[in-house]
Amino acid sequence: MSYARQMLDTYPRGGTVESDLLAATIDALNDCAQACNADNAADLSEPSVADMVTCIRLCLDCTDICAATAAVIGRLTSDDPRVTRPLLEACAAICRSCGDECERHAPHHAHCRICAEACRSCERACLALLEALA
Amino acid sequence: MSYARQMLDTYPRGGTVESDLLAATIDALNDCAQACNADNAADLSEPSVADMVTCIRLCLDCTDICAATAAVIGRLTSDDPRVTRPLLEACAAICRSCGDECERHAPHHAHCRICAEACRSCERACLALLEALA
Amino acid sequence: MSYARQMLDTYPRGGTVESDLLAATIDALNDCAQACNADNAADLSEPSVADMVTCIRLCLDCTDICAATAAVIGRLTSDDPRVTRPLLEACAAICRSCGDECERHAPHHAHCRICAEACRSCERACLALLEALA
Amino acid sequence: MSYARQMLDTYPRGGTVESDLLAATIDALNDCAQACNADNAADLSEPSVADMVTCIRLCLDCTDICAATAAVIGRLTSDDPRVTRPLLEACAAICRSCGDECERHAPHHAHCRICAEACRSCERACLALLEALA
Repeated sequence: MSYARQMLDTYPRGGTVESDLLAATIDALNDCAQACNADNAADLSEPSVADMVTCIRLCLDCTDICAATAAVIGRLTSDDPRVTRPLLEACAAICRSCGDECERHAPHHAHCRICAEACRSCERACLALLEALA
Repeated sequence: MSYARQMLDTYPRGGTVESDLLAATIDALNDCAQACNADNAADLSEPSVADMVTCIRLCLDCTDICAATAAVIGRLTSDDPRVTRPLLEACAAICRSCGDECERHAPHHAHCRICAEACRSCERACLALLEALA
Repeated sequence: MSYARQMLDTYPRGGTVESDLLAATIDALNDCAQACNADNAADLSEPSVADMVTCIRLCLDCTDICAATAAVIGRLTSDDPRVTRPLLEACAAICRSCGDECERHAPHHAHCRICAEACRSCERACLALLEALA
Repeated sequence: MSYARQMLDTYPRGGTVESDLLAATIDALNDCAQACNADNAADLSEPSVADMVTCIRLCLDCTDICAATAAVIGRLTSDDPRVTRPLLEACAAICRSCGDECERHAPHHAHCRICAEACRSCERACLALLEALA
Protein backbone atom coordinates (compact mmCIF):
# COMPACT_ATOMS: atom_id res chain seq x y z
CA MET A 1 0.00 0.00 0.00
CA SER A 2 1.41 3.38 -0.97
CA TYR A 3 2.37 6.01 1.59
CA ALA A 4 -0.32 8.28 0.17
CA ARG A 5 -2.98 5.67 1.01
CA GLN A 6 -1.52 4.91 4.45
CA MET A 7 -1.44 8.57 5.38
CA LEU A 8 -4.93 9.43 4.29
CA ASP A 9 -6.88 8.05 7.23
CA THR A 10 -4.51 9.27 9.92
CA TYR A 11 -5.73 12.84 10.03
CA PRO A 12 -8.86 14.89 9.41
CA ARG A 13 -9.08 16.56 6.02
CA GLY A 14 -11.51 18.84 4.33
CA GLY A 15 -13.70 17.81 1.43
CA THR A 16 -15.81 14.80 0.64
CA VAL A 17 -13.66 12.97 -1.89
CA GLU A 18 -13.16 9.34 -0.90
CA SER A 19 -9.72 8.30 0.27
CA ASP A 20 -9.12 5.62 -2.38
CA LEU A 21 -9.65 8.07 -5.22
CA LEU A 22 -7.48 10.70 -3.61
CA ALA A 23 -4.66 8.26 -2.89
CA ALA A 24 -4.80 6.85 -6.43
CA THR A 25 -4.53 10.38 -7.83
CA ILE A 26 -1.56 11.29 -5.64
CA ASP A 27 0.20 8.06 -6.66
CA ALA A 28 -0.52 8.66 -10.35
CA LEU A 29 0.83 12.22 -10.10
CA ASN A 30 4.04 11.12 -8.39
CA ASP A 31 4.49 8.23 -10.84
CA CYS A 32 4.02 10.55 -13.81
CA ALA A 33 6.47 13.14 -12.45
CA GLN A 34 9.04 10.36 -11.95
CA ALA A 35 8.45 8.77 -15.38
CA CYS A 36 8.64 12.11 -17.24
CA ASN A 37 11.83 13.06 -15.41
CA ALA A 38 13.45 9.75 -16.39
CA ASP A 39 12.08 9.87 -19.94
CA ASN A 40 13.50 13.32 -20.49
CA ALA A 41 16.92 12.01 -19.45
CA ALA A 42 16.48 8.97 -21.69
CA ASP A 43 15.51 11.16 -24.65
CA LEU A 44 18.73 13.11 -24.14
CA SER A 45 20.67 9.84 -24.48
CA GLU A 46 19.26 9.08 -27.94
CA PRO A 47 21.49 9.55 -31.00
CA SER A 48 18.46 11.17 -32.63
CA VAL A 49 18.13 13.77 -29.89
CA ALA A 50 17.11 16.45 -32.42
CA ASP A 51 13.91 14.45 -33.06
CA MET A 52 13.19 14.31 -29.35
CA VAL A 53 13.18 18.03 -28.55
CA THR A 54 9.39 18.38 -28.33
CA CYS A 55 9.22 15.27 -26.18
CA ILE A 56 11.92 16.61 -23.83
CA ARG A 57 10.14 19.98 -23.49
CA LEU A 58 6.79 18.38 -22.73
CA CYS A 59 8.35 15.97 -20.24
CA LEU A 60 9.96 18.91 -18.40
CA ASP A 61 6.65 20.77 -18.14
CA CYS A 62 4.82 17.59 -17.18
CA THR A 63 7.31 16.80 -14.41
CA ASP A 64 7.01 20.26 -12.88
CA ILE A 65 3.22 20.46 -13.06
CA CYS A 66 2.63 16.91 -11.79
CA ALA A 67 5.08 17.40 -8.91
CA ALA A 68 3.43 20.64 -7.80
CA THR A 69 -0.05 19.13 -8.13
CA ALA A 70 1.03 16.07 -6.13
CA ALA A 71 2.39 18.34 -3.40
CA VAL A 72 -0.79 20.43 -3.20
CA ILE A 73 -3.25 17.53 -3.48
CA GLY A 74 -1.00 15.40 -1.26
CA ARG A 75 -1.39 17.83 1.63
CA LEU A 76 -5.12 17.29 1.24
CA THR A 77 -5.97 20.31 3.21
CA SER A 78 -6.64 23.07 0.79
CA ASP A 79 -9.99 22.36 -0.62
CA ASP A 80 -10.40 25.60 -2.51
CA PRO A 81 -11.87 24.73 -5.92
CA ARG A 82 -10.63 28.01 -7.42
CA VAL A 83 -7.12 26.63 -6.94
CA THR A 84 -7.47 22.87 -7.24
CA ARG A 85 -9.75 22.82 -10.28
CA PRO A 86 -7.54 24.83 -12.69
CA LEU A 87 -4.44 23.13 -11.30
CA LEU A 88 -5.91 19.69 -12.09
CA GLU A 89 -7.05 20.98 -15.49
CA ALA A 90 -3.53 22.22 -16.31
CA CYS A 91 -2.17 18.89 -15.16
CA ALA A 92 -4.62 16.84 -17.24
CA ALA A 93 -3.81 19.01 -20.28
CA ILE A 94 -0.04 18.61 -20.04
CA CYS A 95 -0.43 14.85 -19.39
CA ARG A 96 -2.56 14.65 -22.54
CA SER A 97 0.01 16.52 -24.69
CA CYS A 98 2.98 14.74 -23.22
CA GLY A 99 1.26 11.36 -23.54
CA ASP A 100 0.44 12.04 -27.21
CA GLU A 101 4.03 12.98 -27.99
CA CYS A 102 5.49 10.03 -26.07
CA GLU A 103 3.11 7.69 -27.89
CA ARG A 104 4.47 8.92 -31.25
CA HIS A 105 7.91 7.73 -30.16
CA ALA A 106 6.71 4.55 -28.44
CA PRO A 107 7.37 2.23 -31.41
CA HIS A 108 11.05 3.25 -31.38
CA HIS A 109 11.80 3.93 -27.72
CA ALA A 110 10.65 1.73 -24.83
CA HIS A 111 11.18 4.62 -22.40
CA CYS A 112 8.63 6.71 -24.31
CA ARG A 113 6.16 3.83 -24.32
CA ILE A 114 6.41 3.50 -20.54
CA CYS A 115 6.19 7.26 -20.06
CA ALA A 116 3.10 7.46 -22.28
CA GLU A 117 1.40 4.93 -19.99
CA ALA A 118 2.23 7.02 -16.92
CA CYS A 119 0.87 10.16 -18.64
CA ARG A 120 -2.38 8.44 -19.72
CA SER A 121 -2.92 7.05 -16.26
CA CYS A 122 -2.24 10.44 -14.65
CA GLU A 123 -4.55 12.25 -17.06
CA ARG A 124 -7.36 9.79 -16.20
CA ALA A 125 -6.70 10.24 -12.47
CA CYS A 126 -6.84 14.05 -12.73
CA LEU A 127 -10.08 13.93 -14.70
CA ALA A 128 -11.63 11.48 -12.20
CA LEU A 129 -10.70 13.73 -9.30
CA LEU A 130 -12.05 16.78 -11.12
CA GLU A 131 -15.34 14.97 -11.59
CA ALA A 132 -15.46 13.93 -7.93
CA LEU A 133 -14.79 17.53 -6.86
CA ALA A 134 -17.64 18.84 -9.00
CA MET B 1 18.38 43.56 -14.77
CA SER B 2 17.06 40.13 -13.75
CA TYR B 3 18.30 36.91 -15.31
CA ALA B 4 14.80 36.31 -16.69
CA ARG B 5 15.00 39.59 -18.64
CA GLN B 6 18.59 38.99 -19.81
CA MET B 7 17.73 35.52 -21.08
CA LEU B 8 14.62 36.46 -22.98
CA ASP B 9 16.17 37.94 -26.08
CA THR B 10 18.91 35.35 -26.49
CA TYR B 11 16.78 32.69 -28.10
CA PRO B 12 13.70 32.30 -30.28
CA ARG B 13 10.49 31.55 -28.43
CA GLY B 14 6.93 30.87 -29.41
CA GLY B 15 4.09 33.27 -28.82
CA THR B 16 3.60 36.99 -29.20
CA VAL B 17 3.80 38.19 -25.60
CA GLU B 18 6.31 41.01 -25.26
CA SER B 19 9.54 40.25 -23.42
CA ASP B 20 9.13 42.86 -20.66
CA LEU B 21 5.78 41.47 -19.57
CA LEU B 22 7.05 37.90 -19.63
CA ALA B 23 10.19 38.75 -17.66
CA ALA B 24 8.20 40.73 -15.08
CA THR B 25 5.88 37.74 -14.59
CA ILE B 26 8.73 35.27 -14.16
CA ASP B 27 10.38 37.58 -11.62
CA ALA B 28 7.10 38.07 -9.73
CA LEU B 29 6.54 34.29 -9.62
CA ASN B 30 10.04 33.59 -8.31
CA ASP B 31 9.78 36.42 -5.76
CA CYS B 32 6.45 35.12 -4.52
CA ALA B 33 7.71 31.53 -4.21
CA GLN B 34 10.69 32.82 -2.21
CA ALA B 35 8.59 35.13 0.02
CA CYS B 36 5.97 32.44 0.78
CA ASN B 37 8.68 29.90 1.61
CA ALA B 38 10.30 32.33 4.05
CA ASP B 39 6.97 33.48 5.47
CA ASN B 40 5.93 29.93 6.20
CA ALA B 41 9.17 29.45 8.17
CA ALA B 42 8.62 32.76 9.96
CA ASP B 43 5.05 31.79 10.88
CA LEU B 44 6.41 28.60 12.42
CA SER B 45 8.65 30.74 14.65
CA GLU B 46 5.74 32.68 16.17
CA PRO B 47 4.64 31.90 19.73
CA SER B 48 1.08 32.08 18.40
CA VAL B 49 1.74 29.36 15.80
CA ALA B 50 -1.76 27.90 16.30
CA ASP B 51 -3.19 31.14 14.85
CA MET B 52 -0.91 30.88 11.84
CA VAL B 53 -1.92 27.42 10.57
CA THR B 54 -4.07 28.67 7.69
CA CYS B 55 -1.33 31.08 6.68
CA ILE B 56 1.29 28.31 6.73
CA ARG B 57 -0.90 26.01 4.62
CA LEU B 58 -1.60 28.69 2.02
CA CYS B 59 2.07 29.70 1.89
CA LEU B 60 3.04 26.08 1.21
CA ASP B 61 0.57 25.77 -1.66
CA CYS B 62 1.54 29.19 -3.00
CA THR B 63 5.25 28.31 -2.96
CA ASP B 64 4.71 25.07 -4.87
CA ILE B 65 2.33 26.53 -7.48
CA CYS B 66 4.40 29.68 -8.09
CA ALA B 67 7.62 27.68 -8.40
CA ALA B 68 6.11 25.29 -10.95
CA THR B 69 4.53 28.15 -12.90
CA ALA B 70 7.84 30.04 -12.91
CA ALA B 71 9.59 26.93 -14.25
CA VAL B 72 7.05 26.37 -17.03
CA ILE B 73 6.66 30.03 -18.03
CA GLY B 74 10.41 30.57 -17.55
CA ARG B 75 11.20 28.02 -20.25
CA LEU B 76 9.04 30.14 -22.52
CA THR B 77 8.67 27.44 -25.02
CA SER B 78 5.42 25.74 -24.34
CA ASP B 79 2.82 28.05 -25.65
CA ASP B 80 -0.10 25.73 -25.26
CA PRO B 81 -2.97 27.76 -23.81
CA ARG B 82 -4.72 24.61 -22.54
CA VAL B 83 -1.81 24.27 -20.13
CA THR B 84 -0.63 27.81 -19.45
CA ARG B 85 -4.06 29.39 -18.97
CA PRO B 86 -5.35 27.14 -16.17
CA LEU B 87 -1.89 27.08 -14.60
CA LEU B 88 -1.84 30.89 -14.44
CA GLU B 89 -5.44 30.87 -13.17
CA ALA B 90 -4.54 28.45 -10.37
CA CYS B 91 -1.54 30.62 -9.56
CA ALA B 92 -3.54 33.86 -9.48
CA ALA B 93 -6.16 32.16 -7.25
CA ILE B 94 -3.67 30.87 -4.67
CA CYS B 95 -1.85 34.25 -4.67
CA ARG B 96 -5.19 35.94 -3.98
CA SER B 97 -6.05 33.60 -1.06
CA CYS B 98 -2.56 33.64 0.37
CA GLY B 99 -2.33 37.43 0.02
CA ASP B 100 -5.68 37.86 1.80
CA GLU B 101 -4.61 35.66 4.70
CA CYS B 102 -1.17 37.30 4.98
CA GLU B 103 -2.81 40.71 5.00
CA ARG B 104 -4.93 39.68 8.01
CA HIS B 105 -1.70 39.08 9.91
CA ALA B 106 0.17 42.08 8.51
CA PRO B 107 -0.58 44.42 11.45
CA HIS B 108 1.12 41.96 13.82
CA HIS B 109 3.83 40.34 11.71
CA ALA B 110 6.14 42.23 9.36
CA HIS B 111 6.93 38.98 7.52
CA CYS B 112 3.26 38.56 6.63
CA ARG B 113 3.06 42.17 5.44
CA ILE B 114 6.02 41.63 3.10
CA CYS B 115 4.65 38.29 1.90
CA ALA B 116 1.24 39.87 1.19
CA GLU B 117 2.97 42.39 -1.09
CA ALA B 118 4.71 39.60 -2.99
CA CYS B 119 1.42 37.71 -3.37
CA ARG B 120 -0.47 40.80 -4.60
CA SER B 121 2.24 41.62 -7.07
CA CYS B 122 2.34 38.03 -8.35
CA GLU B 123 -1.44 37.85 -8.68
CA ARG B 124 -1.39 41.05 -10.78
CA ALA B 125 1.43 39.68 -12.94
CA CYS B 126 -0.42 36.40 -13.59
CA LEU B 127 -3.62 38.25 -14.51
CA ALA B 128 -1.70 40.61 -16.84
CA LEU B 129 -0.07 37.67 -18.59
CA LEU B 130 -3.43 35.88 -18.88
CA GLU B 131 -4.86 38.96 -20.55
CA ALA B 132 -1.91 39.24 -22.93
CA LEU B 133 -2.27 35.57 -23.87
CA ALA B 134 -5.96 36.03 -24.68
CA MET C 1 7.03 -2.81 -10.70
CA SER C 2 7.73 0.88 -10.20
CA TYR C 3 8.28 3.27 -13.08
CA ALA C 4 11.83 3.85 -11.86
CA ARG C 5 12.60 0.13 -12.27
CA GLN C 6 10.84 -0.12 -15.63
CA MET C 7 12.74 2.86 -17.01
CA LEU C 8 16.17 1.79 -15.91
CA ASP C 9 16.94 -0.76 -18.59
CA THR C 10 15.52 1.20 -21.50
CA TYR C 11 18.50 3.47 -22.01
CA PRO C 12 22.25 3.55 -21.52
CA ARG C 13 23.45 5.21 -18.35
CA GLY C 14 26.81 5.98 -16.84
CA GLY C 15 28.16 4.28 -13.75
CA THR C 16 28.33 0.73 -12.53
CA VAL C 17 25.62 0.69 -9.89
CA GLU C 18 23.19 -2.16 -10.46
CA SER C 19 19.70 -1.30 -11.62
CA ASP C 20 17.84 -2.85 -8.68
CA LEU C 21 19.72 -0.78 -6.14
CA LEU C 22 19.27 2.41 -8.13
CA ALA C 23 15.55 1.82 -8.65
CA ALA C 24 15.04 1.02 -4.96
CA THR C 25 16.78 4.26 -4.00
CA ILE C 26 14.71 6.37 -6.40
CA ASP C 27 11.51 4.78 -5.06
CA ALA C 28 12.58 5.33 -1.45
CA LEU C 29 13.38 8.98 -2.18
CA ASN C 30 10.03 9.61 -3.85
CA ASP C 31 8.17 7.77 -1.08
CA CYS C 32 9.93 9.80 1.59
CA ALA C 33 9.24 13.11 -0.17
CA GLN C 34 5.57 12.15 -0.42
CA ALA C 35 5.31 10.93 3.20
CA CYS C 36 7.05 14.02 4.63
CA ASN C 37 4.84 16.33 2.58
CA ALA C 38 1.70 14.60 3.89
CA ASP C 39 3.04 14.37 7.45
CA ASN C 40 3.77 18.07 7.54
CA ALA C 41 0.14 18.74 6.53
CA ALA C 42 -1.08 16.24 9.14
CA ASP C 43 1.05 17.90 11.85
CA LEU C 44 -0.59 21.21 10.99
CA SER C 45 -3.99 19.59 11.65
CA GLU C 46 -3.11 18.61 15.22
CA PRO C 47 -4.62 20.59 18.13
CA SER C 48 -1.14 20.46 19.67
CA VAL C 49 0.47 22.13 16.65
CA ALA C 50 2.87 24.09 18.86
CA ASP C 51 4.49 20.76 19.85
CA MET C 52 4.87 19.78 16.20
CA VAL C 53 6.89 22.77 14.96
CA THR C 54 10.24 20.97 14.86
CA CYS C 55 8.61 18.03 13.09
CA ILE C 56 7.00 20.35 10.50
CA ARG C 57 10.31 22.12 9.83
CA LEU C 58 12.23 18.88 9.39
CA CYS C 59 9.51 17.43 7.15
CA LEU C 60 9.70 20.51 4.91
CA ASP C 61 13.49 20.22 4.55
CA CYS C 62 13.24 16.46 4.05
CA THR C 63 10.62 16.84 1.31
CA ASP C 64 12.71 19.36 -0.62
CA ILE C 65 16.00 17.48 -0.32
CA CYS C 66 14.50 14.06 -1.13
CA ALA C 67 12.61 15.46 -4.14
CA ALA C 68 15.73 17.10 -5.58
CA THR C 69 17.83 14.00 -4.94
CA ALA C 70 15.18 11.81 -6.59
CA ALA C 71 15.18 14.11 -9.63
CA VAL C 72 18.99 14.08 -9.96
CA ILE C 73 19.47 10.37 -9.23
CA GLY C 74 16.35 9.55 -11.26
CA ARG C 75 17.88 11.02 -14.42
CA LEU C 76 20.71 8.56 -13.84
CA THR C 77 23.02 10.36 -16.09
CA SER C 78 25.15 12.61 -14.00
CA ASP C 79 27.64 10.35 -12.41
CA ASP C 80 29.83 13.03 -10.91
CA PRO C 81 30.70 11.90 -7.39
CA ARG C 82 31.50 15.48 -6.34
CA VAL C 83 27.80 16.20 -6.77
CA THR C 84 26.03 12.92 -6.01
CA ARG C 85 28.03 12.00 -2.88
CA PRO C 86 27.37 15.17 -0.83
CA LEU C 87 23.80 15.28 -2.11
CA LEU C 88 23.17 11.74 -0.85
CA GLU C 89 24.96 12.60 2.41
CA ALA C 90 22.72 15.64 2.94
CA CYS C 91 19.72 13.47 2.15
CA ALA C 92 20.73 10.69 4.55
CA ALA C 93 21.34 13.31 7.27
CA ILE C 94 17.96 15.01 6.94
CA CYS C 95 16.20 11.61 6.77
CA ARG C 96 17.99 10.64 10.00
CA SER C 97 16.94 13.86 11.82
CA CYS C 98 13.43 13.83 10.46
CA GLY C 99 13.04 10.13 11.24
CA ASP C 100 14.22 10.69 14.83
CA GLU C 101 11.76 13.52 15.37
CA CYS C 102 8.86 11.64 13.76
CA GLU C 103 9.63 8.63 15.95
CA ARG C 104 9.28 10.79 19.08
CA HIS C 105 5.72 11.56 18.00
CA ALA C 106 4.92 8.06 16.73
CA PRO C 107 3.19 6.87 19.94
CA HIS C 108 0.68 9.72 19.62
CA HIS C 109 0.31 10.24 15.88
CA ALA C 110 -0.04 7.44 13.34
CA HIS C 111 1.03 9.84 10.56
CA CYS C 112 4.36 10.41 12.29
CA ARG C 113 4.86 6.67 12.75
CA ILE C 114 4.32 6.08 9.02
CA CYS C 115 6.54 9.02 8.10
CA ALA C 116 9.32 7.76 10.40
CA GLU C 117 9.28 4.45 8.49
CA ALA C 118 9.61 6.27 5.17
CA CYS C 119 12.53 8.33 6.54
CA ARG C 120 14.35 5.27 7.94
CA SER C 121 13.90 3.40 4.70
CA CYS C 122 15.14 6.36 2.66
CA GLU C 123 18.16 6.91 4.92
CA ARG C 124 19.13 3.24 4.46
CA ALA C 125 18.69 3.52 0.69
CA CYS C 126 20.89 6.63 0.48
CA LEU C 127 23.62 4.98 2.58
CA ALA C 128 23.48 1.82 0.46
CA LEU C 129 23.83 3.85 -2.73
CA LEU C 130 26.69 5.86 -1.23
CA GLU C 131 28.47 2.60 -0.44
CA ALA C 132 27.88 1.24 -3.92
CA LEU C 133 29.25 4.44 -5.45
CA ALA C 134 32.43 4.22 -3.37
CA MET D 1 15.98 45.11 -2.00
CA SER D 2 15.18 41.44 -2.53
CA TYR D 3 12.43 39.65 -0.62
CA ALA D 4 15.07 37.39 0.95
CA ARG D 5 16.78 40.45 2.48
CA GLN D 6 13.51 42.05 3.57
CA MET D 7 12.36 38.86 5.29
CA LEU D 8 15.54 38.17 7.18
CA ASP D 9 15.16 40.62 10.04
CA THR D 10 11.47 40.03 10.63
CA TYR D 11 11.84 36.84 12.64
CA PRO D 12 14.28 35.11 14.96
CA ARG D 13 16.50 32.52 13.35
CA GLY D 14 19.15 30.14 14.54
CA GLY D 15 22.81 30.47 13.73
CA THR D 16 25.28 33.32 13.67
CA VAL D 17 25.63 34.00 9.94
CA GLU D 18 25.06 37.68 9.17
CA SER D 19 21.89 38.59 7.32
CA ASP D 20 23.55 40.20 4.29
CA LEU D 21 25.56 37.08 3.51
CA LEU D 22 22.56 34.83 3.94
CA ALA D 23 20.31 37.01 1.77
CA ALA D 24 22.97 37.24 -0.95
CA THR D 25 23.27 33.44 -0.98
CA ILE D 26 19.51 32.90 -1.22
CA ASP D 27 19.31 35.40 -4.09
CA ALA D 28 22.24 33.78 -5.90
CA LEU D 29 20.64 30.34 -5.52
CA ASN D 30 17.29 31.51 -6.88
CA ASP D 31 18.97 33.41 -9.73
CA CYS D 32 20.99 30.36 -10.69
CA ALA D 33 17.96 28.04 -10.61
CA GLN D 34 16.10 30.50 -12.84
CA ALA D 35 19.04 31.00 -15.26
CA CYS D 36 19.73 27.25 -15.60
CA ASN D 37 16.05 26.52 -16.22
CA ALA D 38 15.93 29.13 -19.00
CA ASP D 39 19.30 28.09 -20.42
CA ASN D 40 18.20 24.50 -20.67
CA ALA D 41 15.16 25.63 -22.69
CA ALA D 42 17.36 27.86 -24.85
CA ASP D 43 19.79 24.99 -25.51
CA LEU D 44 16.85 22.91 -26.71
CA SER D 45 16.07 25.65 -29.26
CA GLU D 46 19.51 25.47 -30.88
CA PRO D 47 19.86 23.79 -34.29
CA SER D 48 22.99 22.14 -32.85
CA VAL D 49 21.06 20.57 -29.98
CA ALA D 50 23.16 17.41 -30.16
CA ASP D 51 26.18 19.47 -29.07
CA MET D 52 24.25 20.86 -26.13
CA VAL D 53 23.24 17.60 -24.43
CA THR D 54 25.84 17.81 -21.65
CA CYS D 55 24.90 21.43 -21.05
CA ILE D 56 21.18 20.55 -20.84
CA ARG D 57 21.83 17.70 -18.39
CA LEU D 58 23.98 19.86 -16.12
CA CYS D 59 21.47 22.71 -16.24
CA LEU D 60 18.70 20.32 -15.16
CA ASP D 61 20.71 19.05 -12.19
CA CYS D 62 21.81 22.58 -11.30
CA THR D 63 18.22 23.88 -11.36
CA ASP D 64 16.99 21.13 -9.05
CA ILE D 65 19.85 21.35 -6.57
CA CYS D 66 19.86 25.17 -6.42
CA ALA D 67 16.08 25.30 -5.98
CA ALA D 68 16.14 22.79 -3.10
CA THR D 69 19.10 24.54 -1.46
CA ALA D 70 17.35 27.92 -1.79
CA ALA D 71 14.24 26.46 -0.16
CA VAL D 72 16.17 24.93 2.77
CA ILE D 73 18.53 27.89 3.32
CA GLY D 74 15.66 30.31 2.65
CA ARG D 75 13.69 28.96 5.61
CA LEU D 76 16.75 29.82 7.68
CA THR D 77 15.68 27.67 10.50
CA SER D 78 17.43 24.39 10.14
CA ASP D 79 20.91 25.06 11.27
CA ASP D 80 22.08 21.49 11.28
CA PRO D 81 25.56 21.46 9.71
CA ARG D 82 25.26 17.73 8.89
CA VAL D 83 22.54 18.74 6.42
CA THR D 84 23.46 22.24 5.27
CA ARG D 85 27.18 21.62 4.73
CA PRO D 86 26.93 18.71 2.27
CA LEU D 87 23.94 20.35 0.59
CA LEU D 88 25.98 23.52 -0.04
CA GLU D 89 28.94 21.38 -1.16
CA ALA D 90 26.77 19.54 -3.68
CA CYS D 91 25.40 22.87 -4.85
CA ALA D 92 28.84 24.45 -5.25
CA ALA D 93 30.02 21.36 -7.17
CA ILE D 94 27.15 21.34 -9.66
CA CYS D 95 27.47 25.13 -10.13
CA ARG D 96 31.16 24.61 -10.89
CA SER D 97 30.50 21.85 -13.47
CA CYS D 98 27.55 23.62 -15.03
CA GLY D 99 29.45 26.94 -15.13
CA ASP D 100 32.42 25.24 -16.85
CA GLU D 101 30.20 23.66 -19.49
CA CYS D 102 28.21 26.87 -20.09
CA GLU D 103 31.47 28.79 -20.46
CA ARG D 104 32.57 26.42 -23.24
CA HIS D 105 29.46 27.46 -25.20
CA ALA D 106 29.58 31.15 -24.22
CA PRO D 107 31.38 32.32 -27.40
CA HIS D 108 28.53 30.91 -29.51
CA HIS D 109 25.45 31.32 -27.32
CA ALA D 110 24.63 34.43 -25.30
CA HIS D 111 22.26 32.39 -23.11
CA CYS D 112 25.14 30.13 -22.05
CA ARG D 113 27.33 33.16 -21.29
CA ILE D 114 24.64 34.62 -19.02
CA CYS D 115 24.01 31.24 -17.38
CA ALA D 116 27.74 30.77 -16.75
CA GLU D 117 27.77 34.07 -14.84
CA ALA D 118 24.84 32.96 -12.69
CA CYS D 119 26.58 29.62 -11.96
CA ARG D 120 29.89 31.30 -11.03
CA SER D 121 28.16 33.76 -8.79
CA CYS D 122 26.17 30.99 -7.10
CA GLU D 123 29.25 28.83 -6.60
CA ARG D 124 31.04 31.75 -4.90
CA ALA D 125 27.99 32.41 -2.70
CA CYS D 126 27.77 28.75 -1.60
CA LEU D 127 31.50 28.66 -0.78
CA ALA D 128 31.26 31.95 1.17
CA LEU D 129 28.34 30.60 3.21
CA LEU D 130 30.19 27.33 3.82
CA GLU D 131 33.14 29.31 5.16
CA ALA D 132 30.89 31.44 7.39
CA LEU D 133 29.24 28.30 8.77
CA ALA D 134 32.59 26.76 9.67
